Amino acid sequence: MTKKPLILVTNDDSISAPGIKVLTDIANHFGEVWVVAPDSPMSGKGHAISLDVSLRVNEVKSTGPQKEFKVSGTPADCVKLAINKVLPRRPDLILSGINHGSNASINVIYSGTMSAAVEGALERIPSIGFSLCEFSWEASFEAAKPAIHKIISKVIENGLTTGTCLNVNIPENTKVPYKGIRVCRMAIGNWEEELDERIDPFGRPYYWLTGKFVNYDNGEDTDIAALDEGYITVVPITVDLTAHHAVSALNQWDFEE
Amino acid sequence: MTKKPLILVTNDDSISAPGIKVLTDIANHFGEVWVVAPDSPMSGKGHAISLDVSLRVNEVKSTGPQKEFKVSGTPADCVKLAINKVLPRRPDLILSGINHGSNASINVIYSGTMSAAVEGALERIPSIGFSLCEFSWEASFEAAKPAIHKIISKVIENGLTTGTCLNVNIPENTKVPYKGIRVCRMAIGNWEEELDERIDPFGRPYYWLTGKFVNYDNGEDTDIAALDEGYITVVPITVDLTAHHAVSALNQWDFEE
Repeated sequence: MTKKPLILVTNDDSISAPGIKVLTDIANHFGEVWVVAPDSPMSGKGHAISLDVSLRVNEVKSTGPQKEFKVSGTPADCVKLAINKVLPRRPDLILSGINHGSNASINVIYSGTMSAAVEGALERIPSIGFSLCEFSWEASFEAAKPAIHKIISKVIENGLTTGTCLNVNIPENTKVPYKGIRVCRMAIGNWEEELDERIDPFGRPYYWLTGKFVNYDNGEDTDIAALDEGYITVVPITVDLTAHHAVSALNQWDFEE
Repeated sequence: MTKKPLILVTNDDSISAPGIKVLTDIANHFGEVWVVAPDSPMSGKGHAISLDVSLRVNEVKSTGPQKEFKVSGTPADCVKLAINKVLPRRPDLILSGINHGSNASINVIYSGTMSAAVEGALERIPSIGFSLCEFSWEASFEAAKPAIHKIISKVIENGLTTGTCLNVNIPENTKVPYKGIRVCRMAIGNWEEELDERIDPFGRPYYWLTGKFVNYDNGEDTDIAALDEGYITVVPITVDLTAHHAVSALNQWDFEE
């Protein structure tokens, strides 16, 4: 990595979210920062990209040394646009977040924050997604800052395995002081949906998607267990979705019979 | 599985796409079919879910024995709504597709078709996504039908490893007769973007996301290699995104220093 790395900062809560401002401030300690982030909230957009609409990019006034651009698209769009159009060269590091809300366990599948980091991993650029396990835009990020500094400096120092990125989750502030940083695997759980049915003024039903997360995974080495204990969790995430452990069973199937 | 399984059919190209009609016809041979699919195309929507808008579900006139419902949401929304609101009970099998276009390699990350199958895997329901490697809505699915029948019957017979689903890709029709069905891992590649810049009538730039897929993976056991040879590919996909091979390297990092 060069002496002054070029750092792309993005998120899914939009360029006006408090979390991205905290992450940008931290990033400014490590290199030249360009913020390219959605112009509106993109939570739950997963790894969506814009194929049926075109994209707008507009520079916005920056209050710090960083350059800032808002994009009319998803977090994955932002990374693609940043790398190919906005930044002066390929970034050395991609930071996404700090998300307002947990992206532990299977939330990574739905997370716009993490889709930006995964997009970075696909581009073979070291990438980290950060999330605080509190939804409130007023939540304090103070206690999280030292660990975020530490994790970024370690990634700059060591790089990341090609085709992987990091999913970092920070416990809620009631768990401060945090117990430390722990490398984990993601817990396997699921959202048990409760569809909230309403009736519109014209008598027709509509539904809000709500639900609660249920952890099916009792492993002590999971992110959910470590967050419960008050640790900041680091989970390496892969772009290879093959269920390698299931290949041999499938190879027993006789498709020719 | 019960004698007459309850089968959910969905897709990302919308309920009016030719591909879902072919898949529904095949599914009718295996059980009681309920189609719950997006009312408009959702290609590239990844694992997006609707958190900021509510959802509408409307029954549409069916031309076969199946029940059919259109949803104003993403493929993942469709699966959640189908399981929790539309179907008379939890489905025994979820089929998604047939997608118009390849979902081989890393396309699974962006694919709405596969997000429905992954959503099924999260729900611990055997789920399969099918894609034909041709974008045209006029493309023939005739040659693909016997293999789709075979794969569905094998999944009904054997089930799938918990937390996994199948990503099935069918070569373009120029490769007919197909050489057979091959179990593979997903190739690791990437989309190299070419952002198509246009100027609107008011002098402001906008961008279309385009690009070409580049395969970085020379493995003979990959889906891309097998499709090139004329095989129908079956890749087991996991909901566990942990890069397990990267955990030990991260554990060497001293976060306390």
